[in-house]
Amino acid sequence: MAHIDLGFDEKTAPGIVGLLRYRPATGGPLAALADALLRAPNSLSRGERELIAAQVSALNGCAFCRDSHSAVAAAQLEPGMAVVEQVRADPSTAPISAKLRALLAIADAVRESGHAVTPALVAGAREAGATDVEIHDTVLIAAAFCMFNRYVDGLGTFTPDDPAAHAASAQRIVEFGYSVRP
Amino acid sequence: MAHIDLGFDEKTAPGIVGLLRYRPATGGPLAALADALLRAPNSLSRGERELIAAQVSALNGCAFCRDSHSAVAAAQLEPGMAVVEQVRADPSTAPISAKLRALLAIADAVRESGHAVTPALVAGAREAGATDVEIHDTVLIAAAFCMFNRYVDGLGTFTPDDPAAHAASAQRIVEFGYSVRP
Repeated sequence: MAHIDLGFDEKTAPGIVGLLRYRPATGGPLAALADALLRAPNSLSRGERELIAAQVSALNGCAFCRDSHSAVAAAQLEPGMAVVEQVRADPSTAPISAKLRALLAIADAVRESGHAVTPALVAGAREAGATDVEIHDTVLIAAAFCMFNRYVDGLGTFTPDDPAAHAASAQRIVEFGYSVRP
Repeated sequence: MAHIDLGFDEKTAPGIVGLLRYRPATGGPLAALADALLRAPNSLSRGERELIAAQVSALNGCAFCRDSHSAVAAAQLEPGMAVVEQVRADPSTAPISAKLRALLAIADAVRESGHAVTPALVAGAREAGATDVEIHDTVLIAAAFCMFNRYVDGLGTFTPDDPAAHAASAQRIVEFGYSVRP
């Protein structure tokens, strides 16, 4: 059970969904941030950005964000969940571009601490073809999920046991984004 | 020097200020989030909320956020910087309310991991008089500064050496908030 009384059955609005509804004053900017980072036009595809979010969440041990963003990534990547799972198992051998691999390394450093992002990691991403905006966005996606993960778990929100529970809401997010709630 | 080329002299826009200007698409939601968390009407005073932000930033080792939010906290608390420094030195003996002390303990747990927020910490805050919304907002302030700190340090932004450099921008923030930039 969540650490606070959300005022409704938390199973109807698991994870961050219930928190956005509980506190619209902060929910608005948070959803707008997610849309700007994960959906707005970008030289990184939506699937690539969701994969960074899913991987950071997995490494932070946040089951809700891991499973929900893995589903949204899989829905927007070829070949779907297989690549998400290969990245989860070992980013160094997963079938992704050298650029995405280098950006995932930056994201993992951000997770530890901003100070862990070294000039060498940044140079590696640049050599693999990453632009300054892509490096910026990767750092901010990773940092934002260090927030979202702590928000969701810090308030003890409900997480569905079955990762497949996220497939339907992933389809809704792919179609409408994070700011529009049905 | 910052890890990316911001396109202007970073000393004119240190820390997060330059990042908000560099990428307005994400800067807008981030500034709106800061205003909602730290300035909007709340049963926690603006000074108390800034103190939580400053303390989380200090413990995360982010000098820019620590010094800038310490200045904004001091400008809105009695007796100013003395209480910020006493909390920094030892929250357990600083001259703050039992409620704020309990909320700072929750914030420190969030910093480690969302999973570190225990029912006992939440019960302690409630016994000290904290409401559900105050507990929610504390968790989200702490989580948000785990993002802001990583964003600022992960991109290697410029940090003024002198903490006093933040006094002028603190006055501007106290007057106008985070969304309005001169």
